[in-house]
Amino acid sequence: MRNTVPNEDFILAQIAKRTSASHAPSSTQSLALGIGDDAALFRPKPGNEVILTSDWFLEGTHFLMKKHPPESAGWKCLARALSDVAAMGGSPRCFLLSLALPLSRTGLWLHGFLSGLRRASVKFNCILAGGDTTRQEQILISITVIGEVRKGDAVLRSGARPGNIIYVSGRLGEAELGLRILQRSGRLAAGDALLRKHLYPEPRLALGSWLAEKRIASSMMDISDGLSSDLPRLCAASGVGARLEWQRIPCVHHSIAPRALSLDPLQLALHGGDDYELLFTVSPRSTHRIPKSFHGLRLTAIGEITRGHKLQLLRKDGSEQPLVAGGWDPFRSSKAR
Amino acid sequence: MRNTVPNEDFILAQIAKRTSASHAPSSTQSLALGIGDDAALFRPKPGNEVILTSDWFLEGTHFLMKKHPPESAGWKCLARALSDVAAMGGSPRCFLLSLALPLSRTGLWLHGFLSGLRRASVKFNCILAGGDTTRQEQILISITVIGEVRKGDAVLRSGARPGNIIYVSGRLGEAELGLRILQRSGRLAAGDALLRKHLYPEPRLALGSWLAEKRIASSMMDISDGLSSDLPRLCAASGVGARLEWQRIPCVHHSIAPRALSLDPLQLALHGGDDYELLFTVSPRSTHRIPKSFHGLRLTAIGEITRGHKLQLLRKDGSEQPLVAGGWDPFRSSKAR
Repeated sequence: MRNTVPNEDFILAQIAKRTSASHAPSSTQSLALGIGDDAALFRPKPGNEVILTSDWFLEGTHFLMKKHPPESAGWKCLARALSDVAAMGGSPRCFLLSLALPLSRTGLWLHGFLSGLRRASVKFNCILAGGDTTRQEQILISITVIGEVRKGDAVLRSGARPGNIIYVSGRLGEAELGLRILQRSGRLAAGDALLRKHLYPEPRLALGSWLAEKRIASSMMDISDGLSSDLPRLCAASGVGARLEWQRIPCVHHSIAPRALSLDPLQLALHGGDDYELLFTVSPRSTHRIPKSFHGLRLTAIGEITRGHKLQLLRKDGSEQPLVAGGWDPFRSSKAR
Repeated sequence: MRNTVPNEDFILAQIAKRTSASHAPSSTQSLALGIGDDAALFRPKPGNEVILTSDWFLEGTHFLMKKHPPESAGWKCLARALSDVAAMGGSPRCFLLSLALPLSRTGLWLHGFLSGLRRASVKFNCILAGGDTTRQEQILISITVIGEVRKGDAVLRSGARPGNIIYVSGRLGEAELGLRILQRSGRLAAGDALLRKHLYPEPRLALGSWLAEKRIASSMMDISDGLSSDLPRLCAASGVGARLEWQRIPCVHHSIAPRALSLDPLQLALHGGDDYELLFTVSPRSTHRIPKSFHGLRLTAIGEITRGHKLQLLRKDGSEQPLVAGGWDPFRSSKAR
């Protein structure tokens, strides 16, 4: 039986074996007990707070079996959850993997998935500490990441004040463009590079913890559902409004891809999800501390926090229009991403 | 739109509102930041280790829409995960709820679910700290519980030694009996009492932390998949064998229920899942410290840890038979529980 029908203990052993890796001492020392007992034991450093965040990654909703390689599913499910740790300004330590899958995916698919997961785990120094596995017709993944941040250093959504300058990292809309290309399933000439941000997003951990440690950002969050959906959340948490400058928003280049697909780069940047860039605000007296790029990652001022609750988009000609949320909402949308 | 089609933010607000409750100071003080930001922030006490555990609770696998009231789903999904904290000897602090559900369940069902969840959260003093929600055709729940235990006090599976006495709390097989009754969907005369352990299990938190603090148990785990499946895991982790005494195992009474259903109480006790009782071992020189009952919960010596790797069941007539795992394995079984 054991050789043909894997049982839960066998699958757990596979997961433990294939995700074990050499990690930096900061992570291995903090994990006092990993996979194999009723629960894991984690030792935070004295003076630190523990960051806790969970993220779904579901077949058919967050990835498609026919379009997304298992390596991408493994990488991305962890990278997305790590992005929440980046958004608090913290450092990841370990994660729990809840995985449900059909028997038919416990072979090649699981192998590829664990290989992508392991790569992300090593790259972002976040150790698998435990989790739960069960059988299900569709693949279900829920990841919980545990991180740390020095007490008082975490950057919340609620700290934005009128007059603060709004920044974003990277370019917005790239992941959405990758998704659109994948959906039409042309791999264009430059396909792989354009798909990379959709398949293998990078949580902005170094930037997040720099902004937190140096106490530069007054508020911060990651852009997961699209700027037009996420900025209103930051503003609501802070009790403020915002004015974005249309022409400052870092969009994807007017390259062959958006044109061929008849996509508007600004619409991609405003409403496209899955970018996992950081959105943060900075007091005007600290903006001189923000470099144009941070370790090669572009940082762009895109507008200003205002009094009140309005979210406006300022056109080149000086006219304004309301910013309307058009990003990802699972209870409204039904696209896989 | 907002009144008819709830969006993610609306559902999150519902969850936050309906699960907020008065908790003991130990929990509220340790949660520095709860629902509403990118992640939660938790402050463990100095000198403590953080316990981390995740559990699936899936419609069709762990509960059935037609058989299980939403209040039970809410209670049980948290209680099961808390049982892992009990099994380490720790105290729960907070939890993350990952919930996926169809639009049609965001009304009455969600209300009942959150009411059951809130009751368990208050009773076991474990605060909702965050999570993730999305839409899915079937209801999917993944719970991560965060607990604490004094450094060095956690009781692992790996500490059992030859000669140690094996104990269990409560009676085994009661939850399985409740499931069988529910499946045949007679509510028998004594139906509600017999169903209680299946629908509203109680994690043995007080017993677990007492055994840990007093350093009485040499190893411990909770029985979630059935004694015949879980004892081999404890023995494998400890590198030992075990001999159970058939007539000592605390079974359900030969009442009307098992007879009417033609169930063998010993088979229910050996292979029935979902009991969430504690299985622990005690050195012979400490067994005098184990009372017959702990706050009304029966404690029973059922056998002994042996050298080697064999697991044997000792009959009344002195003959032995191997203990064969017949409990719950999601990759082998397909019953809802």
